[in-house]
Amino acid sequence: MLRATLLGCGATRPLPERALAALALTVGGSTVLLDCGEGTQTALARHGVSPYRVDAILLTHYHGDHIFGLPGLLQTMAGLGRTAPLLLAGPAGLETLAGALAVLAGPLPFPVELAEFPDCRGTLSAGLMQAEAFPLRHRAPCCGYRLTLPRAGRFDPGRARALGIPVALWKRLQKGETVDGFAPEQVIGPARRGLTVVYGTDTAPCPALRSAAQNADLLCMDATYADDADLPKAKLYGHSTCTQAGQLAAAAGVRRLWLTHYSAAVTDPEPGLSAARAAFAAAEAGFDGKTLELTFDEE
Amino acid sequence: MLRATLLGCGATRPLPERALAALALTVGGSTVLLDCGEGTQTALARHGVSPYRVDAILLTHYHGDHIFGLPGLLQTMAGLGRTAPLLLAGPAGLETLAGALAVLAGPLPFPVELAEFPDCRGTLSAGLMQAEAFPLRHRAPCCGYRLTLPRAGRFDPGRARALGIPVALWKRLQKGETVDGFAPEQVIGPARRGLTVVYGTDTAPCPALRSAAQNADLLCMDATYADDADLPKAKLYGHSTCTQAGQLAAAAGVRRLWLTHYSAAVTDPEPGLSAARAAFAAAEAGFDGKTLELTFDEE
Repeated sequence: MLRATLLGCGATRPLPERALAALALTVGGSTVLLDCGEGTQTALARHGVSPYRVDAILLTHYHGDHIFGLPGLLQTMAGLGRTAPLLLAGPAGLETLAGALAVLAGPLPFPVELAEFPDCRGTLSAGLMQAEAFPLRHRAPCCGYRLTLPRAGRFDPGRARALGIPVALWKRLQKGETVDGFAPEQVIGPARRGLTVVYGTDTAPCPALRSAAQNADLLCMDATYADDADLPKAKLYGHSTCTQAGQLAAAAGVRRLWLTHYSAAVTDPEPGLSAARAAFAAAEAGFDGKTLELTFDEE
Repeated sequence: MLRATLLGCGATRPLPERALAALALTVGGSTVLLDCGEGTQTALARHGVSPYRVDAILLTHYHGDHIFGLPGLLQTMAGLGRTAPLLLAGPAGLETLAGALAVLAGPLPFPVELAEFPDCRGTLSAGLMQAEAFPLRHRAPCCGYRLTLPRAGRFDPGRARALGIPVALWKRLQKGETVDGFAPEQVIGPARRGLTVVYGTDTAPCPALRSAAQNADLLCMDATYADDADLPKAKLYGHSTCTQAGQLAAAAGVRRLWLTHYSAAVTDPEPGLSAARAAFAAAEAGFDGKTLELTFDEE
């Protein structure tokens, strides 16, 4: 099971009831954080996600509304006695950011491992998930992320019996080990559909996002502007309107769309949601604390 | 009128309903901020204090719970179009902090003027108030601040008439100008009692704080621990118990005491308040959004 928790759906500056960009993806007790706007540690506490087990933080870019929660979260992790390494990933500039964080947060009792994606491309393992970075279309270098929880193929007990493999070895084969000359491929079918969450903000619609979001279970996307009349502003600043988010979700064939990164001027999410739904019926308005539990398809 | 707004009364890490250290003092539309923990800009919005007119930020020290709101507040001020200089004051290390803030927040459209108090001592003008820094007793160099809104002496119209000063000149004399050979002292009595707020956190009780708080209208003081049994911990870390805050307030003869900087372990302020009130009956428990309007004495 993969649990998504939208910690903050605001842009630029926080509102009393709307924190800044952050999305938590939790699998097996370990959390990957996408962005870390100011107040993220408060949002984690409010929505029941442990800061202690945030094992990776993937940053899209270094605008303040996506990173100013880092010093506080790092220090709180330290206060909780964390010693496990923390993975911090992002586009070019990560080392400079890490230097400034070190000044603010002081020495930490756990190592911070940096993974910089100079051209906003790369892959890494984040807990049980695989993350792929791809370039978005923003006014600063900005990574989108596609996170996948893979799912192994089905084990075929009939074939295992037919091959004469002792039952005692099945578990190890299921884990992918080769045992007593038997290879997993002999008894395990092709990998099945896993779970995929795509985080695409800040960005104007772009082919890289459409391609990365293909068939995703959840797309959490930039929907800065609710009104189509703001399209020129969206283009200028490298953001999307709610309509554009709906259109991209439809083109990518995602299962669910969460609108996020609302401009502080968007006080009512309804008109934007209606606009997105005109293009993609399954669009949902993001709000702080919105959660979703994704499970593997029955098959 | 001087309005005090306690923006956050928490220590170390924020709780969902308790932000980190920050106190706003507003006079004539201009605000002086004491400390700026993470979430201060949200607290300003929540409690109706404009971030645009925060003209000075006086930092006690550089532990995260007192400063991590700075990058976001600076950037929000920039977004609001601020061009007026901002005064940033604090103990030794201010330039290093300012360097890290510049990396995080990027170029700002207003100058940030630094006032460093190397031995935690100094004075400065902050809007209409006068601020005096003094050293607290913490495990890092830490400034307490005494802020005073001065009040001129009373103008004596009888004496002005007796001296034959034309009424047209009275206003300028009242403003402190010497006019046509007449000096303000000839018609204005001695300075009257102004308004004084003392901000004393983080600290163990110490003579410098007791002396600075003498007769203050409001003392906002470190009350990290509610239970007297935590006294050894308070000493070790350079904090105070609620009882100690009450004792210091009584010894200094302040008018009001606000307990603040509660440990995250203090979930109910009542026992600490009772402990403080045993020493000082006018003690009040701090909470986020607590406000007070101080006016000059009738005289």
